[in-house]
Amino acid sequence: MTPFKPCGLISLSTDFGLRDPFVGLMKAVIFSRFPAARLIDLSHDLPAFRPDIAGFWLARCWPYFPDGTVHLAVVDPGVGGQRAMRWVRIAQHIFIAPDNGLLDEVEQGTDWLESRQFGVEDLSTLQLGAISHTFHGRDVFAPLVAALASGSLLTSAIGTPATRKGKVLKPPNSLPYGAIGQVKVIDHFGNLITDIELPDPSDTLAAKYRIGDQVIEFNKTYSELAPGSLLAVRNSFDLLEIAVTEGNAAQVLGAQIGTPIFLMPT
Amino acid sequence: MTPFKPCGLISLSTDFGLRDPFVGLMKAVIFSRFPAARLIDLSHDLPAFRPDIAGFWLARCWPYFPDGTVHLAVVDPGVGGQRAMRWVRIAQHIFIAPDNGLLDEVEQGTDWLESRQFGVEDLSTLQLGAISHTFHGRDVFAPLVAALASGSLLTSAIGTPATRKGKVLKPPNSLPYGAIGQVKVIDHFGNLITDIELPDPSDTLAAKYRIGDQVIEFNKTYSELAPGSLLAVRNSFDLLEIAVTEGNAAQVLGAQIGTPIFLMPT
Amino acid sequence: MTPFKPCGLISLSTDFGLRDPFVGLMKAVIFSRFPAARLIDLSHDLPAFRPDIAGFWLARCWPYFPDGTVHLAVVDPGVGGQRAMRWVRIAQHIFIAPDNGLLDEVEQGTDWLESRQFGVEDLSTLQLGAISHTFHGRDVFAPLVAALASGSLLTSAIGTPATRKGKVLKPPNSLPYGAIGQVKVIDHFGNLITDIELPDPSDTLAAKYRIGDQVIEFNKTYSELAPGSLLAVRNSFDLLEIAVTEGNAAQVLGAQIGTPIFLMPT
Repeated sequence: MTPFKPCGLISLSTDFGLRDPFVGLMKAVIFSRFPAARLIDLSHDLPAFRPDIAGFWLARCWPYFPDGTVHLAVVDPGVGGQRAMRWVRIAQHIFIAPDNGLLDEVEQGTDWLESRQFGVEDLSTLQLGAISHTFHGRDVFAPLVAALASGSLLTSAIGTPATRKGKVLKPPNSLPYGAIGQVKVIDHFGNLITDIELPDPSDTLAAKYRIGDQVIEFNKTYSELAPGSLLAVRNSFDLLEIAVTEGNAAQVLGAQIGTPIFLMPT
Repeated sequence: MTPFKPCGLISLSTDFGLRDPFVGLMKAVIFSRFPAARLIDLSHDLPAFRPDIAGFWLARCWPYFPDGTVHLAVVDPGVGGQRAMRWVRIAQHIFIAPDNGLLDEVEQGTDWLESRQFGVEDLSTLQLGAISHTFHGRDVFAPLVAALASGSLLTSAIGTPATRKGKVLKPPNSLPYGAIGQVKVIDHFGNLITDIELPDPSDTLAAKYRIGDQVIEFNKTYSELAPGSLLAVRNSFDLLEIAVTEGNAAQVLGAQIGTPIFLMPT
Repeated sequence: MTPFKPCGLISLSTDFGLRDPFVGLMKAVIFSRFPAARLIDLSHDLPAFRPDIAGFWLARCWPYFPDGTVHLAVVDPGVGGQRAMRWVRIAQHIFIAPDNGLLDEVEQGTDWLESRQFGVEDLSTLQLGAISHTFHGRDVFAPLVAALASGSLLTSAIGTPATRKGKVLKPPNSLPYGAIGQVKVIDHFGNLITDIELPDPSDTLAAKYRIGDQVIEFNKTYSELAPGSLLAVRNSFDLLEIAVTEGNAAQVLGAQIGTPIFLMPT
């Protein structure tokens, strides 16, 4: 495999929130070890205890980053316990996360892939300080991504090749009979981002969907209908998204993460 | 006109929120095309569907940025539809936004000004990838500001000179008889920032204002009165602001965006 | 004292929130005066009017930053009034804040320390512009930290040596009889971070604590118990922290900032 050529960029995804100084502490550690780092916050308000949502976004976002980016994602309910960590490489991107299924969706459908499992004991060259039982983002992950992004640690030196593709975390709600997918994310605008893939832009305009007893017609954009109109769009991640023109679809529909979506017979 | 000399700095103002990875994706695209970019988040929690509020802040903030800054503001309810985009230059600052009135307040009262309208079809030199119908911040605006801030795109190459000063978006509430202005922003502290300009610091100390049936006296600072005191100040943007010492004026007064302000007869 | 050697890094802690453009304006001023600055947001959602909480975090976070960092903290209910500003140096770190007790916890327990008080009148070399009565973060503190972090201002040039260790702001709730400490911060996860120091990792595992009538046993990590379990941990700042495995301790216990903690007799 071609050696990884870091560009100095690190993307950060966590469920730490921005109210407390936790994210800032990770950045302080990164800058202490790699002063020339460049950092992009992907999100720090990912749902707590849901590594699958972190992976859902990371799998769809990483292709927009330049080659040489190191992606760190920390949604880590098992911190301090027995869980391993996971390193994944796809082309010129490296991903670091707890080995709790977070990276499963990143790994899916990728041909050129290498993945490793490792523990703190595999990171002796990093000269880590005291490692707390509750904040590996600061004590372990930040020093690790600083070393990877600066090129001081070769990735082939970490851990052992992963022996499994990772247990895919099931979402808490299983789908009822007939549903074609579910609400995966409610975004800042109240739009319902589903897990229903729409790779082909040409053949969906005639489709109708249903949430509860509300029928929703497909449209090309949010903006062509009168304010308050319910509509379905193929969003910028090639996913079905339910929206209300200049309104909040989650409130209008009373929808939540896990709400099932049905396709109406045509 | 003197050529624009970019300093590599880009300011970002959106209504995307920070919970989802939308802002991070814009930054990923910017760094992909312009690795040396420096970015300042002005706000990402601007009120959705209110381009006028985005313009209110941008008009008051840009003079604090260094010459050579490119300012991108995306509050874009018409994304994917027929709306054009707008490019404005004032001295050594460039502003990019949807052409929906967002930049009207930036343009007002400025002598040296150039503004252009353009569409995606004017950006062929940028070699844009697939353009979604729902996320032009990532697919169009980010590549554009990267090119402007890096100097790879000369601004004279974009679009055609604007033929109008832009439709100024009316705020939803028109003012009742006798009101001298309204609450434009409720800030993080609950202070009521109004659209009432107080350019002259010397002659306002005797004034009294009224919201509902509460009379509010002018004061120099937040801090000279006892906690809980209602007061009006000339704020750091030369605007009338209503505050409560160590308290939340919006809660105390039950005020909202659009609440009218009256001047008491002296 | 060895001269301060700035590394170009500035940490920012405020109660300004991220909804308004106030933090962005501080950064704009910093970049205008020091284009090569690197910035880390420690927190901008610190509780308003509580300088002691800002100091609580800053005292625990600064050791993770590299030598040469300038730390700016602005929780400033007295802005525009008579309060002075304070400059503190510990080893190769400089701290700037309003002189309202914010830096007291940073100063406590430190041997090598220098602290100064100063006013706007001591900053004439900075060539400040108009200074508002409500936003010294932008008009005074930002230019000051830019000058310190760029090395253009020598710290020995600021103000006069402080004559007091600073009035320690009392938290609003005094402790009831028998309490060993209180909830100082409720973090993003609903964990209760207390002011109870646990420097020694070895001797706490047998301890039991009480909040209200709930008894809480000590554990090594969040993750070893069943979801929903109440537990106490020694957190990553060597403080007692009350948590619920994959849950929200503040909600479960109805706890708030100031809630007292009791030690159970063994």
